[in-house]
Amino acid sequence: MLLGLGVVYDFPKYSIFQRGLIQVLNIKVEKAKELKQKPDFNNLGFGTDFTDHMFMMNYTEGQGWHDPRIVPYGPITLDPSAMVLHYAQEMFEGMKAYKTEDGRALLFRPEKNIQRTNVTNDRLCIPKINEEDMLQAIKALVSVEKDWIPTASGTSLYIRPFIFATDPFLGVRASATYLFMIILSPVGAYYKGGINPVKIWVETEYVRAVKGGVGYAKTGGNYAASIKAQMKAKERGYAQVLWLDGVERKYVEEVGTMNVFFKIDGEVITPALEGSILPGITRNSVIELLHSWGISVTERKLSIDEIYEAAEKGTLEEAYGTGTAAVISPIGQLNYNGKIITINDGKIGELSQRIYDTVTGIQTGAAEDSFNWTVEVE
Amino acid sequence: MLLGLGVVYDFPKYSIFQRGLIQVLNIKVEKAKELKQKPDFNNLGFGTDFTDHMFMMNYTEGQGWHDPRIVPYGPITLDPSAMVLHYAQEMFEGMKAYKTEDGRALLFRPEKNIQRTNVTNDRLCIPKINEEDMLQAIKALVSVEKDWIPTASGTSLYIRPFIFATDPFLGVRASATYLFMIILSPVGAYYKGGINPVKIWVETEYVRAVKGGVGYAKTGGNYAASIKAQMKAKERGYAQVLWLDGVERKYVEEVGTMNVFFKIDGEVITPALEGSILPGITRNSVIELLHSWGISVTERKLSIDEIYEAAEKGTLEEAYGTGTAAVISPIGQLNYNGKIITINDGKIGELSQRIYDTVTGIQTGAAEDSFNWTVEVE
Ligand SMILES: Cc1ncc(COP(=O)(O)O)c(C=O)c1O
Ligand SMILES: Cc1ncc(COP(=O)(O)O)c(C=O)c1O
Repeated sequence: MLLGLGVVYDFPKYSIFQRGLIQVLNIKVEKAKELKQKPDFNNLGFGTDFTDHMFMMNYTEGQGWHDPRIVPYGPITLDPSAMVLHYAQEMFEGMKAYKTEDGRALLFRPEKNIQRTNVTNDRLCIPKINEEDMLQAIKALVSVEKDWIPTASGTSLYIRPFIFATDPFLGVRASATYLFMIILSPVGAYYKGGINPVKIWVETEYVRAVKGGVGYAKTGGNYAASIKAQMKAKERGYAQVLWLDGVERKYVEEVGTMNVFFKIDGEVITPALEGSILPGITRNSVIELLHSWGISVTERKLSIDEIYEAAEKGTLEEAYGTGTAAVISPIGQLNYNGKIITINDGKIGELSQRIYDTVTGIQTGAAEDSFNWTVEVE
Repeated sequence: MLLGLGVVYDFPKYSIFQRGLIQVLNIKVEKAKELKQKPDFNNLGFGTDFTDHMFMMNYTEGQGWHDPRIVPYGPITLDPSAMVLHYAQEMFEGMKAYKTEDGRALLFRPEKNIQRTNVTNDRLCIPKINEEDMLQAIKALVSVEKDWIPTASGTSLYIRPFIFATDPFLGVRASATYLFMIILSPVGAYYKGGINPVKIWVETEYVRAVKGGVGYAKTGGNYAASIKAQMKAKERGYAQVLWLDGVERKYVEEVGTMNVFFKIDGEVITPALEGSILPGITRNSVIELLHSWGISVTERKLSIDEIYEAAEKGTLEEAYGTGTAAVISPIGQLNYNGKIITINDGKIGELSQRIYDTVTGIQTGAAEDSFNWTVEVE
C-alpha cells in the first residue's frame, strides 16, 4: 500500500528517485584487520564465498534507521526469541555488480531492487528504507569490495541486501526493531560452456502463492514454501517447477525462482502481475527491450492448456525463464501430468539468445546502454 | 507426505508413540551459574520473560540430530548468510506446562505438538525429529525449570520448540544443518477478569493460506504474512481477522491464529482440514470433548454467507476461536464488508463456557482427565 495507491504488485510508479528527496547516510567504516584469501575466481560457485566486509544498519521504533556501518564480515548475535527465528518477518533482495573490460564496476537497475524492497517491506510491515540511503549503502560496500568483483565472462559479484525482525518477543505482531544488512558473494558463470535449455516439471500439487498472499513480495517464507516442490521435480530429473496459479490451477505463474515468457505464433506472452507473481527486474527489462525492438509483449493470463495446444499446432516457438541469476534460462521441455512437450527441439531460441546477449552486454558494459540501466560505482 | 500416505493435513494416524519405537537422548545439562530474578508472577505478560535455561540440539547431514543439551539461556551466533535469515526455512510449536494445586507439572497432549512438528518439518524439508526424543527434551527442560511455572489461575509456562536452517549459503534449497531449540516463558492469564467476547474483522483482501501451500504447517512464513491483515483489523478497532479461503473467498478458515467454531441451529460446525488450515490441538480436543458429551461436530466447508443468513434467521447461537493461548475465545461481533452482526448478544455462549471450564480444568489437574490428555513431568 505504497503512497496510498492501493496494493502495488508491480514496481511503484513514483519513488524518491523521481521526487529528488535525497538523504545522505553517514556510513562508519571499520576495515577488516586481515583480508581473506580470495577464492579461485575461475572456479566460483554460487553463494558460498563472502567478501571481507558487510553493511549493517539498525532500526528502532521511534528512532528510525540508524547506525549505518561497514564492518568486517562476521557472525551476528541474536536472542533465541528474536522474532525472525519464529515468525519469519524477513525480506531479501538479489542483484549483481559487474566489472567492465576497462575495470569499472556497474550495477544493473539498482533502483528497481530498492523500490521492490519497500514493496516487500510494506507487505511485511517492515519499516521503509530511504531509497537514496539504500543505494548509497550498496555503492559504498561494493566500492570497498571492488577487488572481489570477478572479471571472467558470466561471473559477477552477487549483492544480497536483507532485513529481519530482532525483537526478543514471542507474540505475533510487527517487530519494533530490525537489522538491515548487505553481504556480497563472488559468483561463477550460470552457464559454463553454452546455454543449455532445461527440463521443467509442471507442478499440480504444490502452489507457490495466491492473490491476497505475499507472492509479489520477496519474503523469506515464499522460498521455504517452495523447496518441497523443487525437490520433487529434481527427484524426477527436472531442473525446476513451473508453478500454476493457486485458484484455478491452470494459469502459469513462474518457473522456479524466475519469471516466465512464452512465444506462441509470434506473440510474446508473460503472466500479468496480479499479486501472486514476483515483479522481476529482468522480466521488466526484457519487456522494455522487446518493445524497443518493435516486438510487443502481452501481459495476460496464460493457461497451461493454451501452451500445450500451441505445441500441438506447432506454434509454440520459444519459452524461457528470466531472473538475475541466469538472465535467460530457456525451457527445452515441459512435463504436465506425464505429457511431455519439447520446445524448439530443446535448443535455445533465436529471440532468447538475442535477449541474453543484449542484456548481459549492457550489464557488463560491452554493449551500449541506451536505456540508462547501469549505474557506476566509483 | 508422512509414511508415504500422501499429504497429511491433520495429525498423522500412526506415530512412533503407537509403534513403541523408543530412543533415549543423552542430554548434557550445563546449569546457569546465576539464576535470574523471576518476574512478578502476578503480573505476567506473554512471551517477554524467558527462563534460566534452554534446550539445543544440532542436525548435520549424514550425522542426524546430535548433541542434545540444556544450557544457560543466552544469545546464539549465526553467520549472516545463515539460510533461516534469507529463506525462512524455520518452524515452531507452541504448548504449555501447567501447575496443579498439589504442585505437579502437567503437559497437555504434547504428543500432538510433536507429531505436528514432523508434519511441518516434512512440508519444509526439515529432517524429522524422533518423537520420543522431542518429548524427552521438553520434559527435561520443564523439569529443570519447574520453579518457573506460575500457579495463579490462568497462568502457565509457555513452551516454544523451534527449528531453523543454519547453512551459510545463499542458494534456495533445503539446508544441510539445523538447530532445534526449546525456550520457556512464564505467561499470564489470557483473560484477566472474565472472558470477553471479541470483535472480529472478516478479511476480504488478504489471504492466510491456500491449498497446495503451507497453511496446514506451523511455518514462520505463515505468521509474517498475516501481520498486515492483523494490523488492518486493529486499526479499525477489531481484535483479529476472520480469514476466508484463498480460492473462492467465501469459506471461513481460521480466526487470527486460532481455529474457529460456529454453532448454528444446534449444529456445531468447524472448517474441515483441507490443506490451508492449521490442525489445532485445541480444535481436536474440543471436537473429542463435544463427541463425549453427545454433541456432534460437523467438519465441513462453511461460507460466510451461511453464517450471516443464520444470524438473520436468529439461528447463529455461538462462535469462538480455539487455540493454546486462550483455549476458547468467543466471538461477539463480526464485520463483513461493513455489515455487522452480533452473536449471542456479545456474551460468551453456554457451550463455549462449558468447553473452556472443562479443558482448563483438565489442563490444570482440577477436573478428571478421562481422556488421558495430560502428561506429568517428574
Ligand atoms: C520468485 C522469483 N521470481 C522471479 C525472480 C526474478 O526476479 P529478478 O529478475 O528481479 O531477479 C526471482 C529472483 O530474483 C524470484 O525469486
Ligand atoms: C494459525 C493457527 N491456527 C490455529 C492455532 C491453534 O492451534 P493449537 O490449538 O494447537 O494451539 C494456532 C496456534 O497455535 C495457529 O497459529
